[in-house]
Parts: sequence; C-alpha cells; structure tokens
Amino acid sequence: MAKQQPNLMDNIVSLCKRKGFVFQASEIYGGIGNTYDYGPLGVELLRRVKDAWWGRVVTERSDVVGLDSAIIQHPDVWVTSGHVGGFSDPMVDCKKCKARFRADKIEDASCPEKPSKRPGECAGELTEPREFNLMFKTNVGPVEGSGSVAYLRPETAQGIFLNFKNVLDSARIKPPFGIAQIGKSFRNEITPGNFVFRTREFEQAEMEFFVPPGEDQKWFEFWVRERFQWYTDYGINPDALRLRVHDKKELAHYAKATTDVEYLYPFGWGELEGIANRGDFDLSRHSEASGTKLVYFDQETKEKYTPWVIEPAGGINRMALTFLIDAYEEEQLEKDTRVVLHFHPRIAPTTVAIFPLVKKEGMPEKAHEIEAELRRARLSVQYDEKGAIGRRYRRQDEVGTPFCVTVDGQTLADDVVTVRERDSMEQVTLAVGELVPWILEAMGHWKRPERSPKSKD
Amino acid sequence: MAKQQPNLMDNIVSLCKRKGFVFQASEIYGGIGNTYDYGPLGVELLRRVKDAWWGRVVTERSDVVGLDSAIIQHPDVWVTSGHVGGFSDPMVDCKKCKARFRADKIEDASCPEKPSKRPGECAGELTEPREFNLMFKTNVGPVEGSGSVAYLRPETAQGIFLNFKNVLDSARIKPPFGIAQIGKSFRNEITPGNFVFRTREFEQAEMEFFVPPGEDQKWFEFWVRERFQWYTDYGINPDALRLRVHDKKELAHYAKATTDVEYLYPFGWGELEGIANRGDFDLSRHSEASGTKLVYFDQETKEKYTPWVIEPAGGINRMALTFLIDAYEEEQLEKDTRVVLHFHPRIAPTTVAIFPLVKKEGMPEKAHEIEAELRRARLSVQYDEKGAIGRRYRRQDEVGTPFCVTVDGQTLADDVVTVRERDSMEQVTLAVGELVPWILEAMGHWKRPERSPKSKD
Repeated sequence: MAKQQPNLMDNIVSLCKRKGFVFQASEIYGGIGNTYDYGPLGVELLRRVKDAWWGRVVTERSDVVGLDSAIIQHPDVWVTSGHVGGFSDPMVDCKKCKARFRADKIEDASCPEKPSKRPGECAGELTEPREFNLMFKTNVGPVEGSGSVAYLRPETAQGIFLNFKNVLDSARIKPPFGIAQIGKSFRNEITPGNFVFRTREFEQAEMEFFVPPGEDQKWFEFWVRERFQWYTDYGINPDALRLRVHDKKELAHYAKATTDVEYLYPFGWGELEGIANRGDFDLSRHSEASGTKLVYFDQETKEKYTPWVIEPAGGINRMALTFLIDAYEEEQLEKDTRVVLHFHPRIAPTTVAIFPLVKKEGMPEKAHEIEAELRRARLSVQYDEKGAIGRRYRRQDEVGTPFCVTVDGQTLADDVVTVRERDSMEQVTLAVGELVPWILEAMGHWKRPERSPKSKD
Repeated sequence: MAKQQPNLMDNIVSLCKRKGFVFQASEIYGGIGNTYDYGPLGVELLRRVKDAWWGRVVTERSDVVGLDSAIIQHPDVWVTSGHVGGFSDPMVDCKKCKARFRADKIEDASCPEKPSKRPGECAGELTEPREFNLMFKTNVGPVEGSGSVAYLRPETAQGIFLNFKNVLDSARIKPPFGIAQIGKSFRNEITPGNFVFRTREFEQAEMEFFVPPGEDQKWFEFWVRERFQWYTDYGINPDALRLRVHDKKELAHYAKATTDVEYLYPFGWGELEGIANRGDFDLSRHSEASGTKLVYFDQETKEKYTPWVIEPAGGINRMALTFLIDAYEEEQLEKDTRVVLHFHPRIAPTTVAIFPLVKKEGMPEKAHEIEAELRRARLSVQYDEKGAIGRRYRRQDEVGTPFCVTVDGQTLADDVVTVRERDSMEQVTLAVGELVPWILEAMGHWKRPERSPKSKD
C-alpha cells in the first residue's frame, strides 16, 4: 500500500522517458532546471486529468462556471494580492563563489565549488538572508525599465478575482457559486522538485467558490470531501491519501483555514491539493485597491455583501504524477513479472490497442478498418502488429491501456473480436459492431483492482 | 456574405463582454494592452475549438501524436531558431518625448504629447530605426543578469523540433508522421490587434509533419486542403475563406513555400492559419547547434535522412474569433430582428438550454431533474426560468445555443419535452429518455443554414 519500495521513483522516471510520458525540457541543449516536456502519452494523460477535473468541477455542476484569464496581468494585481511584497524565499549568497542558497534549506545544500561540502565551506562568507521573490519578471511594451515591468502569474486565482464582477454581470448566477480555471502558472523555484512534483512552470486547476458570509464553514467542508472523493473516484488508493489540517501558525496570510489532501509519494507524504477558506480577503483588497466594488447585491433580500471564498487548488502535473505513481505495479504473475499501470480507463492515455494476430491473411487490413472506426468515435487508439501477442499485451500494460482488441481468423469469418482487459487479463468475444458501445460502457464501470499476485496470461 | 456591414465588429465586441465571452484583462486596474480574459462562454468556446482541432489532427489520425512542451526552454533554442537574431520589428524613438514607434507603421502613429500630430512633430528628432525583439525576456534561477536570461516562447513549433528524437525513440511511429501541440505563445506586439485577432499572449495550435525528402510537395498540398476543409466542416462560410500563396520575397527565412488560409474579417482579409513547407531547416539547424543528430534511420531500407517538415500553424483565439464572427447574424424575421450565433453544435459554448414553461406546478423541479441528467452526460447546460419563453429563446440564440428544451404540463403528464432548434426555429416533441441520444445524434448532422429571412417564432 505505502509506495515505499526502493527504486520506485527511478523506475517511474525511466518508464516516463522510455515510453514518451515525460522528457527533460531542452534535453539536446543540456536541459533547463526543473522543467519538463510531455511526450505523446504524457500530453494525453494531462488532457484526461484536465477533462476529469473540468467535467466534475464545471460541466456537471449548475453552480460553477469556467474562466480563462491571461498569464500577464496589470502589475498592480500582484501588489494588491501581496505577491510583490511577500511571495519570496529567504536566500543567502556565498561572497566567494557567488552561489545562492535558500536560507531555510541550507542544511541540505552543498557548495558548488566543493560539492561534498556545505555552503560556505569553499571558505567564502555567507551573507545575511535576503528575500528573493519567486515571480518571474518581464517587460511589456517597447521600452524596458521599471515603467513596463510585468510578472508571469504565480497563481491563476487572481485572474478569477479580477473578473468577479464581469462574471456576475454576464452569467446568470449568484452566490453560492464558483468560477473555475485551468492554466499555466510560473514560480522561480530554486530547490529541485522530485521530478514533475514541483516545477518552474506548471498547470494549475483552481476554483474560487463565492458564498454568503456565514456559509463558509459548510462549503469548506463540502469541498474538502468532494475533492478527496474525486481522487478516489478516479482510482487513487484511499489508503495512500490523507487530509491534513494546517495549524494556525502555518496558515497563509489570506487564509482562515486550510486543509491539504496529501498523498504518500515514494519520497514521503506530500501535498496533492489544498482547500483554503480565504474569507473576504481577496475581494476586499481588490475593491480597495482598484476602486471597483467587488460585492454582491441580492435583488430579493436587498442585501449587499462581500462574499467569502472557498478555494480548492491543485496542480494538473502533480495530479498526473500521482495517478502515474498510484497506478504503477510490478505485478508478480505465476511465471514472471509484469509492469502495469492500473489507470482508470478515463485517465489512461491510450484507451484501446488493436492487434492483428498475424501480419498476413488480411488481418492488418481488417484491424486498420476497426482502428479507423474507433478513431472516428474519438477514442485514443494504438495499432501494433509487431511481435507475439503476449509481448504486445505487456507493452500496453506498461503504458496502462485498459483494452486490447485482437483481430484473428474468427474476425474475418464471423466479424467478432477478442477484447482483453488489462487488470483482470480476462478476455471476452464481441461482435465488431458492439465494440465502441462496449468500451464506452466498460470505461464507466471500472473498479480499482486489488493488488495481489495473478496467475493468468 | 462578405462581413462588411458597419458596426459589425463593435457589435461583436459588445456582445462578447455583455454575454461573458471576452473581457478586457485587468479591467478593474485600467487594463493591460492587447490582453484579454475569456469569460464563462469564451472559455467553453476555446475548449470546443481546441477539442475539434485535436480530435481531427491527432485523435482521428494514426500518423500524428501529441506533445506539450514547456514555455521557457533553454535560451540557446531561440538562438538556433533565429528568433534571438531576427524576430524583431524596426523601431524609432523620439529623442524629445521618448515615445517609441514602429518604423514601418509610422504613417499611422501619432505623437503622445500632441495626439493630433505625427511622431516627431512635438519638435523632437526621431532616431534611426533599431530592431526591437518581440520575445519577452525573463531571468531564471536565483541570480538576475545575462547568465540567467530566458525567453517566453514566441511559437510552440520549436518545442516539437527539440523532442523529435525523444518522440521517435518512444512512440511506435515513422515518417511520414506528425507531432502536434496546443499551447500559449507570447509576442511583445506593439501595434494594437483588432480585439483578440492579435494579442500579446495567445494559444497556438501547431503541427509539424515530418516526411521523407521529395514527399514534401504532396503533403504540403494535402495539409492545405485538409486544414481548409476543417474550417468548412465546422461551419465556416467557404465563400468567406480563400487560400493565398506567399510570393518568394514574402517567405520567411525557413520556408520553401507558404499558403495562408485567409478569412474575410470585418476589417478585411486576414490570415487565419498558415501552412508552411519548412524543408529540413529546423532539424538541420538544431542538429548542428546541439550536436544531437536529428535524423531518421529507416531499419528496412537502411536509409538515413533528415525529414522535411510541413507545418499547419494557427491560433486558437483567432479561430474562436472567426467562428464567432462567421456565426453572427442579425436576422430579419417577419415581425422583428433576432441576433443569433449559428455555431456548429460542437463549437457552441452551451449545447442545451432547459426551461420550465412556468415557475410552478413542479416544472422547475422536473426541469432540474432533466438538467442533472444532461450534465451527467457531460453536455454543457444552461437552466433558465426567467421571463417569457420567446425571450428565453432569444437569449440562447444570442449566445448560439443550438437546442432549447421546454418542460411543460405534458412533461409532467407524459414525460415528453419540446426541443426547439436554433437555426430553423422548428420544434419537435421527444420522450425524456430519448433526449440525450437525440442531442448527440443531432450534433453530428448539423448543416450550416442559408442566411435568409425567416418567418417563424
């Protein structure tokens, strides 16, 4: 249950590169720190995670609408939000070798001149800690200089607060209601981040849920439960998840309360998502700073108030990593071991693989015909005709494809195919015409398998 | 046909703000130039456009895979690609008022000190033109300075070339094959951009299709046809589209040939998408600069070669704007005029609206029940109980909702609903149980309506 087996993280990183989930960014130029690109399987995994989040948080709900705000906003936004003043890490410099280190992580750092030694042991003196802002700075417009400084957003949440009034005025909605957004955010992180767990650019999924004051505790509890439930509904092991309540001194300056959903990673418990009660902090601050009143006026009760905000905020990349780690199993079978990713079929990058049993007798042509039909249904498909069927199954297991379809002599004779399910390794025979509806149906009925030795295949 | 009626663009911009498609970014702080946020309907429109592109270019094809590369790559990438050296506009400064202007657009500019006058007429002298790079610069890591300079990508294409070898090594694919990507790019544009037609940050949809040398012309022609076809399949008026072949002196330095798909915007013909034959320019340059050989070795023929590249490249925001403009009609009916967006049902932000005929007799409850069922099917739904049915239809016409479902006395008695179709304004009666499959079916059978006076409703 606890994913603490040795080398697990190394095995996953290696699988990610070998199979096309995640590559080091700018690898051919030596890479760039804490930055990754997502390959053919990785981008499909991210798409599934985003669709699962958006579908549940926006599409299925009548009280949440979406938004897509710009990455570069007016610089005053980040003054008001507190990011210009306070979004920083304390750093110390070595006066001799000029290296810079996080003051609160200096115990774990090493001197770049003498990597076996602690910072400062190159005989340089360390400066006093100074605050280093984590926002990326740039210049907008034709002139460089302080007048044109702008920032890459460090969170998507502020774009939502900025549009609170626009959404109220245009959508037919009133508190309690939410505005949700998925998009890239940027933080100039200094410390390395356990693969894609913490990266300089990352895709956030945030939702600000605006409620009448006094209803905040109820909705806070609702969203903690609902977000926990989402992870388990998509197959994450509930025993590897826990809720952690922030204590008073740990709370961010804007938060009345925060609870994290944590996952037991190979490197220990880590934050998967945070649910915060932000009170009326953001709307009040932006009202004051911008001069635009960000309040709600209830036509029926004639009440005017600043809504309180409950915010579930997670990272798509971290969610994807978590689905990957949680799905990963080196499963002991009777005669051998298989590597298998037990993804929920709605999360799996490839939904169905199709194999001609042999590369002749018209089987590849028939398999391509069925492939085209599956693709027209907008299912994610992989065609494979290389090697023994058993090896092809294993290749698909390793990338988590839930269904493998084999075209054989019977297909040519009777228009039936064999479908092999990834987790149980059981097979069923189906008419070709039933294949698409059968797969769509089966995707909805998946259950997380027990992780125990299997004896088939 | 030609969208040249006066005020059309103003009417669309106003509709976009009023209905929640597009807002000015950071509006409460006075805005930030050339930057927009997408509201509840706008974000759904962008999602549909992205899904339609990805579905056709990636999911439905066996020869294209996806990718999602980082925005901030190693700075050498942009030296090799030619962007550091050549991605610039010529600018002149006024020595007196310090304003900066594009040298090639100076005829259209005005002096900020004397807005009625041309640049330099504040009696300042203008400098000689200097090149101003359009890439946004930032600093990565803890130290500011030239050693840590990085750029926000001005195009997604380079991220694809960087991963050419990674994809070849991990995906089971060989030329001719494509790698597709959707993602944000950034250009520090100085000139204003006709609403969201040209903005500083924008979402690109690019695909690099790698072919054996000699097959480039065939595939270039294929992708020009295929991309043109995609727009008309999703409802764009073919009479408002044209292909424009770049002449030799207009070609970018990397291009052997380029054809633009152009659309007749209210402000004239403009580029909607470009299809370029990039030859082996990019892979060769990156091979040379990085020392990693970006070539293909064919195991069967034992041939080694650098593939040529055909690139269809468009902007999601510009596509969305084009769908909006093309869908927009102020339609003359017998007694009045309606504003209607004739979106393809797969592009429309809201797929179905649901109305209780009256706000009593259990109709709202029944309507909410059906709403929940539609949402569980992951359809995008709007519930509306306010005002006369006719007015509710018009509200949905204005945002392009293709289907309106009314719950009335008959629904409570016989479990049947009335579905009204947006373009024809015709109504059908359906069993509640048939509603979801009927809508899914109807979405696939939509035809672009003739734009002529109607006499119903």
